[in-house]
Amino acid sequence: MAKRVVVIGGGAAGLDAALNARRTSREVEVKVLNAEDKPAYSRCALPFVIGGDIEGFDHIIIYKSEFYKMMKIDLHLKTTVTEIDPSAKVVKALGPDGKEETFEYDSLILTTGARAVVPPIKGYDKKGVYPLRTISDASAILEEALKAKSAVVIGAGLVGLEAAEGLVKRGVKVTVIEALHQVLRPILDEDMAKLLQTKISAHGVKLMLNTKADEILGDDHVKAVAAGGEQVDADLVVMAIGVRANTDLAVKAGCKLGVTGGIKVDARMKTTVEDIYAAGDCVESVHLVTMQPVLCQLGTTAVKQGKVAGINAAGGYATFPGVLGSAVSKLFDVEVGFTGLTEWQARQAGMEVVVGSIPWKTRAEYYPGAKDIRVKLIFEKASMKLIGAQILGGEGVAPRVDALSLAIQKGMTAYELAKADTCYTPPLADTWSAITLAAEAALKKA
Amino acid sequence: MAKRVVVIGGGAAGLDAALNARRTSREVEVKVLNAEDKPAYSRCALPFVIGGDIEGFDHIIIYKSEFYKMMKIDLHLKTTVTEIDPSAKVVKALGPDGKEETFEYDSLILTTGARAVVPPIKGYDKKGVYPLRTISDASAILEEALKAKSAVVIGAGLVGLEAAEGLVKRGVKVTVIEALHQVLRPILDEDMAKLLQTKISAHGVKLMLNTKADEILGDDHVKAVAAGGEQVDADLVVMAIGVRANTDLAVKAGCKLGVTGGIKVDARMKTTVEDIYAAGDCVESVHLVTMQPVLCQLGTTAVKQGKVAGINAAGGYATFPGVLGSAVSKLFDVEVGFTGLTEWQARQAGMEVVVGSIPWKTRAEYYPGAKDIRVKLIFEKASMKLIGAQILGGEGVAPRVDALSLAIQKGMTAYELAKADTCYTPPLADTWSAITLAAEAALKKA
Repeated sequence: MAKRVVVIGGGAAGLDAALNARRTSREVEVKVLNAEDKPAYSRCALPFVIGGDIEGFDHIIIYKSEFYKMMKIDLHLKTTVTEIDPSAKVVKALGPDGKEETFEYDSLILTTGARAVVPPIKGYDKKGVYPLRTISDASAILEEALKAKSAVVIGAGLVGLEAAEGLVKRGVKVTVIEALHQVLRPILDEDMAKLLQTKISAHGVKLMLNTKADEILGDDHVKAVAAGGEQVDADLVVMAIGVRANTDLAVKAGCKLGVTGGIKVDARMKTTVEDIYAAGDCVESVHLVTMQPVLCQLGTTAVKQGKVAGINAAGGYATFPGVLGSAVSKLFDVEVGFTGLTEWQARQAGMEVVVGSIPWKTRAEYYPGAKDIRVKLIFEKASMKLIGAQILGGEGVAPRVDALSLAIQKGMTAYELAKADTCYTPPLADTWSAITLAAEAALKKA
Repeated sequence: MAKRVVVIGGGAAGLDAALNARRTSREVEVKVLNAEDKPAYSRCALPFVIGGDIEGFDHIIIYKSEFYKMMKIDLHLKTTVTEIDPSAKVVKALGPDGKEETFEYDSLILTTGARAVVPPIKGYDKKGVYPLRTISDASAILEEALKAKSAVVIGAGLVGLEAAEGLVKRGVKVTVIEALHQVLRPILDEDMAKLLQTKISAHGVKLMLNTKADEILGDDHVKAVAAGGEQVDADLVVMAIGVRANTDLAVKAGCKLGVTGGIKVDARMKTTVEDIYAAGDCVESVHLVTMQPVLCQLGTTAVKQGKVAGINAAGGYATFPGVLGSAVSKLFDVEVGFTGLTEWQARQAGMEVVVGSIPWKTRAEYYPGAKDIRVKLIFEKASMKLIGAQILGGEGVAPRVDALSLAIQKGMTAYELAKADTCYTPPLADTWSAITLAAEAALKKA
């Protein structure tokens, strides 16, 4: 059994790896080497601190340092790992005081996460231009937002749109610039994206789709962004183009990367190098529908993979099954959910599909407060098995996504979904559920 | 193909039977014979009109008479069927003017529903004592409630508790008398019921469990209820003991009843008499976990069975798969959900079970407005397949029940549930879902 488990990276995956190593064995020594100056926090919560929904950055720190002590997890903050020597089983790092420290391990867990992509846009290094990945990014954005009149968000993915909403809540006029023809391409088809775009625009966000940001303008500090032949005013720019798996250390240690650029791991989260595990945004996962490698850089995936890596690294046994990419977001008054594959992704993967899409209500129509909801289900044509779902709605989207994720996991067909035994009471649900009706809509086309 | 479809009973099952007969064939003649004076309404909504959440009884009528005309459904209100002659294929009824009318059919659909059980309590025929089954019951209760100071509800099932809340909202002091040792015995185990009971009591409802109502006291009008050696003041009594399948006509027509007292039907909702179908509260269903006959007198079941009966009666083909009894209710600020079997029911059915029960939050703990939720999952011991679930929570209970209903339908194990790919964003869901954690809790005991 491993005596010394070292975790590199102290985010969500790292924390769950450390906790589960400890739970697996009381004897094992657990060290977490974290380059940031704060213990693990909820990265997904950053836009909501910017928007003021959450009062401050302290609220999103998952556990205080005392908890790590109580769990006998040796947390090293401001400790940047510079090298791994897999033959000597030693990690070298620069500690808080800039001095080199070494850590010996029996099992090593890489949770090095991902880095915000910095696009090659002229002027990107001006003041007032930030990625949104860390507490320090978000703090800087919030500070600028409180005095900014206008802002540009580059990239209409989840982080970009959530940041846009946060800025709007601070009274900033926001323009979102997106190179693709729609928002949220990884989780919504164009038909669903259009519905969402209307809602976002209605909240005063200017959406510039099919548009590339050409240049960040200004002297020292950003003043505007040149895009689509316009100059868009901006006292602040948020770069939300996406993230890239942070695999530098892994590569240097000899770990193989997969075709997606993420670290290759097996079902136990073991890399190709003996006694080195990896988890979270830096690894490549297997998609449960296509069985193809994918990057699934979500918090839920990170904690689950971290858990599996931690258990195995400490001498236990656990496996990670693969991903469906289930995701949800709240954008103004719309909840947006996704699991599996979009229609577009399924077709790209060579599948023929049958789609059922239906507008419905979240409660009995006559019950006050009933909200609109639209459910789009994607079935593989030959089997009529559910392979993907998208939901836009005023409430209850997250647990519906989870329901459809279970359905995909179990290979549920449209026939079975249409026969589901759903629950009902006027204040909480309608007699017919939107999910069963969407399945029926697909069956009519099958 | 059937030329003339006659539906007896104009509730939810009857309406869906008629609509789906029409959708199956444009040529078929569809008649609905309804003893009440209003077209189909949402029976489950009655307590919410009493409580004022819904403004009036007109709001809960599903479709106005004009819609029936548009759909070419011949709706006969105030028409009480007295006899069915299955050999002549004729139905006799008393029409609105008290005159006998006859209706010939090729296919007949019985949706005769259920009747409120009137318990043999002395004084039950005093004024101010009502069942809660129809709009006229609910209208009378509402009228009395607006001048009542105190009320007694007899029976702590869903209807009784929803009525209690409605009365509380009208400023009435409410006592609920229940003969069993807990509320909601058909859908909650005692451990979960206790949590709910605390909440209900906190809203000022006096719960008298393990108590029988001995006598309704008063002169002409109820003044109090004698129960458990006390006299409980009551200007109004709601009898919510339960309902009994209304099978008189079916029996007279020669239809066999099942062991539960409901009309026996096959998967196409055909009774044992040629060309007679039945659906809704009057029929016996098959439970999908035990595969035993049960009465499942829920609105969702009624509309689904009505649909299947209507399609078949009009010459189409459809089957009803059986029931899980999925139900949900909102009682004050608690949402209560159930599907499958309770732990107690499973043990009664001879099963050994492994239970996982966990208190959790509906959103990230640090996100404002995160609500408590408790999920209890029941797994069959030899297979670790999910066979039942109960949820109490502040939000999102209904779609979670639906998710677990899908899981039971597909024979999902605790191992599979614990690996579910769930979605997350701080304002809408936690990183770990209560459902996967409850499955893990069960696995630790397996």
